[in-house]
Amino acid sequence: MKLTQDHRDTLDQVLKWRRDVRHFRREPIAPEVLARLRQRMDCAPSVGNARPWRVLQVDSPAHRASVIASFEACNAAAAAAYTGTAQKDYLALKLAGLREAPVHLAIFTDGAVPEGRGLGRQTMPETLAYSTVMAIHTLWLAARAENIGVGWVSILDPVAIADILEVPRDWRLTGYLCLGYAQEPSDTPLLHETGWQTNTATRWRVV
Amino acid sequence: MKLTQDHRDTLDQVLKWRRDVRHFRREPIAPEVLARLRQRMDCAPSVGNARPWRVLQVDSPAHRASVIASFEACNAAAAAAYTGTAQKDYLALKLAGLREAPVHLAIFTDGAVPEGRGLGRQTMPETLAYSTVMAIHTLWLAARAENIGVGWVSILDPVAIADILEVPRDWRLTGYLCLGYAQEPSDTPLLHETGWQTNTATRWRVV
Repeated sequence: MKLTQDHRDTLDQVLKWRRDVRHFRREPIAPEVLARLRQRMDCAPSVGNARPWRVLQVDSPAHRASVIASFEACNAAAAAAYTGTAQKDYLALKLAGLREAPVHLAIFTDGAVPEGRGLGRQTMPETLAYSTVMAIHTLWLAARAENIGVGWVSILDPVAIADILEVPRDWRLTGYLCLGYAQEPSDTPLLHETGWQTNTATRWRVV
Repeated sequence: MKLTQDHRDTLDQVLKWRRDVRHFRREPIAPEVLARLRQRMDCAPSVGNARPWRVLQVDSPAHRASVIASFEACNAAAAAAYTGTAQKDYLALKLAGLREAPVHLAIFTDGAVPEGRGLGRQTMPETLAYSTVMAIHTLWLAARAENIGVGWVSILDPVAIADILEVPRDWRLTGYLCLGYAQEPSDTPLLHETGWQTNTATRWRVV
């Protein structure tokens, strides 16, 4: 299939308007929308076509409370690593929407996946987790196209989360996502708005 | 910006028709097309907005020859790990298009990146490399929308590639990509066509 300028323009809009959302409305996401996200996520590429991502939708209040407690402990430790103004700036940031987001997804990589038969990951075994990352990014773009925001919560202890959710021993947490409708749309990353970090052009050179 | 059914349908087509390409035509990619890919890649999300990806476009025949030698050594070692029919099947696969692809990109993660000021990656430092993976996936989708195929060559020794390209000590290879126009379009992953691996539905359950 030959893709066109229209495909490029539309993809540009999805990429440009994708945002990391941390301020969610409490409105639920309809099951049929979640089903579409799941289908699109399954189009993601993976090393040796191993498709190692395992998705747990964390609905139970007890599980969510444990995850939030883990985030708060990790975030307090992270804040302690900054001093002075940087620490004040850090503490003023809202770094997760765990309490408000209607949908939580804990996404693991199955390190013992039989699919793919090991192909392509003997010298760079990290490509297995990288496959899950591409599935997460696919989900993120698909969510954006449904006007749903995603926040990737990385301030978590991955071993603690695996324990809380009692996953098999070979599963490792790759990403913990909050999904929901954003309180306000924006074309500026939140860390720019708050002055934490501006963009610099990335380097690309010829050798 | 509110995205529409048209955005969803178009994104679906890009996701569905994205393929891992290993059979390239030798036709070059125009510089203005590469420039567009670079711009779109810079829209990728990153932990703490750190944007740690560093891209080297490997053009010199000497560098390319060294990379190909590394691939061949790693691929021979990988083949030796299979026995019997699986080994025969493995050896029959074409796993890289390094000789034909007009563009090679070596994409590194800068582990010493100052941007982002460490935010969000104290408990899961691997999220820095994951940011580069999302930039690679963004590039992959943008390339597909330009009718350019991408092959991610993971059968490489990342330390050897860093040595060959003489990158700074803090840079770690995340992905080595071949880009070019595909010999034949296809909606079936090559590893399915060759019988190496069929798709299974990924698991998604509620806890």
